[in-house]
Amino acid sequence: MKLIEKHRSFQGYQEVYRHPSKVTKCDMQFALYSPDNCTDVPVLYFLSGITCTEQNFIQKSGFQKFASKNQMAVIVPDTSPRGENIPDDENYKLGCGAGFYLNATQEPWSQNYNMYDYITKELPDIIANNYKFSNSKVGIFGHSMGGGGALQCALKNDLYKTVSAISPICSLHHSSFAKDVFANYFNNNEEELNLYDPIMLVKQSKKKFADIKIDVGLDDEFLKDLYIDDFVEACNSVDQKLSLNKHKGYDHGYYFIHSFIEQHIEYHASNLKKI
Amino acid sequence: MKLIEKHRSFQGYQEVYRHPSKVTKCDMQFALYSPDNCTDVPVLYFLSGITCTEQNFIQKSGFQKFASKNQMAVIVPDTSPRGENIPDDENYKLGCGAGFYLNATQEPWSQNYNMYDYITKELPDIIANNYKFSNSKVGIFGHSMGGGGALQCALKNDLYKTVSAISPICSLHHSSFAKDVFANYFNNNEEELNLYDPIMLVKQSKKKFADIKIDVGLDDEFLKDLYIDDFVEACNSVDQKLSLNKHKGYDHGYYFIHSFIEQHIEYHASNLKKI
Repeated sequence: MKLIEKHRSFQGYQEVYRHPSKVTKCDMQFALYSPDNCTDVPVLYFLSGITCTEQNFIQKSGFQKFASKNQMAVIVPDTSPRGENIPDDENYKLGCGAGFYLNATQEPWSQNYNMYDYITKELPDIIANNYKFSNSKVGIFGHSMGGGGALQCALKNDLYKTVSAISPICSLHHSSFAKDVFANYFNNNEEELNLYDPIMLVKQSKKKFADIKIDVGLDDEFLKDLYIDDFVEACNSVDQKLSLNKHKGYDHGYYFIHSFIEQHIEYHASNLKKI
Repeated sequence: MKLIEKHRSFQGYQEVYRHPSKVTKCDMQFALYSPDNCTDVPVLYFLSGITCTEQNFIQKSGFQKFASKNQMAVIVPDTSPRGENIPDDENYKLGCGAGFYLNATQEPWSQNYNMYDYITKELPDIIANNYKFSNSKVGIFGHSMGGGGALQCALKNDLYKTVSAISPICSLHHSSFAKDVFANYFNNNEEELNLYDPIMLVKQSKKKFADIKIDVGLDDEFLKDLYIDDFVEACNSVDQKLSLNKHKGYDHGYYFIHSFIEQHIEYHASNLKKI
């Protein structure tokens, strides 16, 4: 692991690391915020949306103040493999930066686009091997495609004890953001897409959370393409408790995230403390 | 004035406007954060540093939470004139984005580089004519070259009742950041440079502030080039009270700003309330 950024922030450090990844077969970057003297503290993963890197959230959300206050480590991975030899596309909904947290099955994408394994296995192993954070108090959240990513990762992996999402894309079947990935990464194979679809997964999942917190802005320019109400309905159908807050006037961007980031950090902090 | 951005943020709006400027002879942009229902609220101007636009501070500092809490309007101008017909230079310490808040006297810079008049006269007039904010409760602060800009503007203009600075460049005579401007904008005329030099001005100024708040990081990569201790000495020599806080481990960047932005907003809010 190579340290490439380190900045003092709210009595802790905001760092960025680069490391070779086995599952994406390229160097990956992730950001880590850790408050001072933070042995055995809870760990929270944040997954960003399409077009982002690890930088957007760490620069714009202001989460560090609340991670410091609640004594939590926060890990923010990049959204995709990147590099000269990585397949890419002019379409921002495919390739580098597209932020799909799944394992592609079709060539050429399947060689590197294994972000599901990276997020749920390789990166947590790296963190466990290099830091003395809690291995049991682990939560995950995200924004937009990363919000959907957080939901599907949480529903399938016992690692994550809490989950929340900001403006999440809840349906890979219906959202126009996922159409190109469906055709290209999965050759239109519905069964493979189902493995990563929050609505399909919550209906089937034996794992239940005490609560799932979701926030969305009512002036979100992509509101109809998020399928949050369908996710709520799916949760209701299987008695998965969900706390959805719809906020008048707020849009899809980082000004919405920064306005409600405190609530999300506090939500994970208070629920992870109970474990 | 043309509205080019509007985002809901912390029960207020973060907006960006573009307008033709008489003194810079080009279109200028400024950002305005205003909490809801904010008639007669204090107004705070923030001046950014070299290489910035109005975007850096509004995206990265997280000030909106505290402006909302304290019911203050915050105005963030761009750092320089910009456009196809505006003189520029490859050197980032000259030309577009260089963030010098002064009126250049030498051609070709003198045609447009009149940021001092823009900040202290034209922009406050625009705000007064378009909004019902307080005309008396007005403060100014800034970062790096904008920190020095805030100090020199505050010292010379009765408009500003409070002033603070984060990692300010206090000497235009000695800082290497100002060397090229001295030669190019002023043809090495010391008397002209003195008009904008915080250390020279505080020694001469009849205007006294109840306090001047300055914060700086001890791991600031430009620490020796800021001349903050010289500014402290100048303040002491004329009995200008100054509260300087040096913070271990913090650098010159936005992670430092976001860690202490709450203190600066609270400082202006509490002092402007007394007026």
